[in-house]
Amino acid sequence: MHYRVVVYIQGVILKVLAGLMLLPVLTAIIYREWQGFSFVVVAAASYLIGWLLTLKKPKNFMFFAREGIVSVALAWVVISIVGAMPFVLNHDIPYFPNALFETISGFTTTGASILTDVEALSHASLIWRSFTHWVGGMGVIVFMLAIVPMTGGGNAQLMRAESPGPSFGKLVPKLRQSASILYLIYFGLTLIQIGLLLVAKMPLFDALCMTFGSAGTGGFGVRNTSAADYTTLQQGIITVFMILFGVNFNAYYYILHREPGEAFRMEEVRWYFIIIAASIAVITLNVRSMFPSLFLAFHHSAFQVGSIITTTGYSTVNFDAWPELSRAILVLLMFIGACAGSTGGGIKVSRIVILAKSVYHQIVHYIHPKAVSTMKMDGRPADRETIQGVSVYLATYTFIFAASFMVLTADNRFDLVTDFTAVAATFNNIGPGLGGVGPAANFNGLNLVSKFVLMFDMLAGRLELYPMLILFLPRIWKKHM
Amino acid sequence: MHYRVVVYIQGVILKVLAGLMLLPVLTAIIYREWQGFSFVVVAAASYLIGWLLTLKKPKNFMFFAREGIVSVALAWVVISIVGAMPFVLNHDIPYFPNALFETISGFTTTGASILTDVEALSHASLIWRSFTHWVGGMGVIVFMLAIVPMTGGGNAQLMRAESPGPSFGKLVPKLRQSASILYLIYFGLTLIQIGLLLVAKMPLFDALCMTFGSAGTGGFGVRNTSAADYTTLQQGIITVFMILFGVNFNAYYYILHREPGEAFRMEEVRWYFIIIAASIAVITLNVRSMFPSLFLAFHHSAFQVGSIITTTGYSTVNFDAWPELSRAILVLLMFIGACAGSTGGGIKVSRIVILAKSVYHQIVHYIHPKAVSTMKMDGRPADRETIQGVSVYLATYTFIFAASFMVLTADNRFDLVTDFTAVAATFNNIGPGLGGVGPAANFNGLNLVSKFVLMFDMLAGRLELYPMLILFLPRIWKKHM
Repeated sequence: MHYRVVVYIQGVILKVLAGLMLLPVLTAIIYREWQGFSFVVVAAASYLIGWLLTLKKPKNFMFFAREGIVSVALAWVVISIVGAMPFVLNHDIPYFPNALFETISGFTTTGASILTDVEALSHASLIWRSFTHWVGGMGVIVFMLAIVPMTGGGNAQLMRAESPGPSFGKLVPKLRQSASILYLIYFGLTLIQIGLLLVAKMPLFDALCMTFGSAGTGGFGVRNTSAADYTTLQQGIITVFMILFGVNFNAYYYILHREPGEAFRMEEVRWYFIIIAASIAVITLNVRSMFPSLFLAFHHSAFQVGSIITTTGYSTVNFDAWPELSRAILVLLMFIGACAGSTGGGIKVSRIVILAKSVYHQIVHYIHPKAVSTMKMDGRPADRETIQGVSVYLATYTFIFAASFMVLTADNRFDLVTDFTAVAATFNNIGPGLGGVGPAANFNGLNLVSKFVLMFDMLAGRLELYPMLILFLPRIWKKHM
Repeated sequence: MHYRVVVYIQGVILKVLAGLMLLPVLTAIIYREWQGFSFVVVAAASYLIGWLLTLKKPKNFMFFAREGIVSVALAWVVISIVGAMPFVLNHDIPYFPNALFETISGFTTTGASILTDVEALSHASLIWRSFTHWVGGMGVIVFMLAIVPMTGGGNAQLMRAESPGPSFGKLVPKLRQSASILYLIYFGLTLIQIGLLLVAKMPLFDALCMTFGSAGTGGFGVRNTSAADYTTLQQGIITVFMILFGVNFNAYYYILHREPGEAFRMEEVRWYFIIIAASIAVITLNVRSMFPSLFLAFHHSAFQVGSIITTTGYSTVNFDAWPELSRAILVLLMFIGACAGSTGGGIKVSRIVILAKSVYHQIVHYIHPKAVSTMKMDGRPADRETIQGVSVYLATYTFIFAASFMVLTADNRFDLVTDFTAVAATFNNIGPGLGGVGPAANFNGLNLVSKFVLMFDMLAGRLELYPMLILFLPRIWKKHM
């Protein structure tokens, strides 16, 4: 392990984090809230430590996969710990493990909350909470790469460890440029959503926070009722943008580059929309009798489907009271998740598509053992490495899920559905589950061990499992390996 | 598709089935039950049709994988339909879909029942019900191969399609001999269990039925209380034999051949016992307060763990009332299942071991992308084909599971735990689930569509998914392919 590089990157991240905290500071000034001081203190301390850690620049940034992975995994732990400090200092979330849970939930764009009364928080804390979604959505490292000049071959390793999805598609040869393009698209879509919400007469503060939450597919709101209090038009805008932020960003890049044909050739995006349309159709019919009109049934089905498949986690109704089929579909969507290369979580549509194709090929292979057939994705042959990787990903996913579920059930405080969906909702970075952690409840009732397991799950889910697992491999920490 | 061979094999199977029905006929004679006539009628009809179908022997038995797979899948459907007839004719289970459910549950060694009052059945029907477990456990086709002389290269295809586990280990070069050896071991262990149960003063009829149920890892009993009414000694014997029948039979072959070293080298068997021991230990502590003594807590934990991991499904207590952790462990064991090459179902321990190793290798590959490492199983390198096959198996398994779960939830009659464990309990060939299909309930409350889906799941689970899926592939039915 080449420690210098790892430490240096943590320093840069701390400085970036200090900069990001200016938003809550500014908010506190506008609202004249004393709670803003905690952000000033933490930002200053964060910058100071960052400055100390980056005093000695490593000779070169040529490093191996392991340094990249460890740097990214550690960076997420570091920003979560530092990002949680202001909540503790300003007493908005006085208990540190709860503040940490909330911050990890924020950065990983999960949106699972331990708060019972969101509206009691200061505006500074609320906007910071939502802003972590926006920053975590596209990735802290990607953000760093977009703004901090770094030379050497290490960038690819860093970006690979953080970007969601089975394979990282380079948009342009230069990585820093890729990162910048991604953030520009992200920024543009965010601005459009804020604008539309303002036109739909949402207050500016709500519009900012709700947009951060939907852009990052996070799910933290500023009202105790999540998104239920907003008008149908406002909810409709949020629905559309949640779904748009779940699309593979490469599709937008192609459209911007006037290559819409390439965008339409992306099987993942096609399947993403097919799954959404089918789910909305079935659930609308299933919950029809619970709403005064077919339109409202469709409206709320669309919102909930968009919220869950993109792993955002906002709700306009208590879907835990919906019929079993609707709940089962929502649980299934929790696992499918959004597109790779989007801000959404879950297993990702492309992995599901690759798995479904492998199954079909296995069946054909079973009947024609000697036939040679090549699996295709987006019209191009898929390489064996990718297919193998996706299959093993599913296995890794299943093992972590089962282990986490065991720990939660050991408490015997809730029921199997609560514990199962608590893991599903955090591991897939969604937010609310069903039962004791449903949209009408929160995660504070869990014991401390369960909370820490779910914090691990949120980070593991966001970073595509392996970076977090590798931190527990003793040999990675040896100086010479 | 080479139809002649497929039809001929169905004919042989029908004749074999007619022969098997002599056991209930004999039982009816002893107990002087009129219900025995239904077995005489069905056996005669089955033999007649079988005789007609085998009149014209195909010129040769050299056939391809597809004929083998289709023959096996169809054979299981045929014996289930014919095997269900006597229940309908003698009014023990007058409704045909229920009789079919019960028979499929029998042959697939699931043990899920639609009966509310088992004790109301005739002895003839009860012993047939249990006997289907014994026949289905080692395999109908394997049984056929063991007793019916057949020449040509098709046998391997047949056996491959029916034998459980990721790879079929040939014991001896000659397949018929392999089948005979397996059945001899099976027969021997069965006799020992019957003998021990008789020594422990269990009535002969109960001893026969309970042994058929544990040997096939099925789970049908002859009392409404499953195994709860038997003495602790009798329950203990059943515990030990359930676990023994869940061991890969190759291990017994090695031991018989005085090669115990080979048996101990089988990683699957080692892990099987480690998982059992760990589960019993945790559950014993978890349920300690529910029993008067530590011994009884251990005794019932061991029975339930042995029953669930081997996918037998007997119960001595209503484990649905156990604490959440114990229930969660049992649900997990449902999925793990027994060893490959045993009579048990589930995903199989060997597949879990292979998956766990793939995960470890993927993590190492992640840190050292260029390092070449070979995955080993039983001290020998595992080939890529097997690893890939196991991963895709997990994906196929997950898809079928999710689809079945959706159909069950559409009814909205039960809750998510009931529907989830109903699929888990049938797909893994266990028997009881939790909640509405728990050990104190039965499957009769489900609607007709759900029952047919679960019948498919039982067959798919027993035949390792693909043979049943292939039946739905239109192109397999083309004459020239």
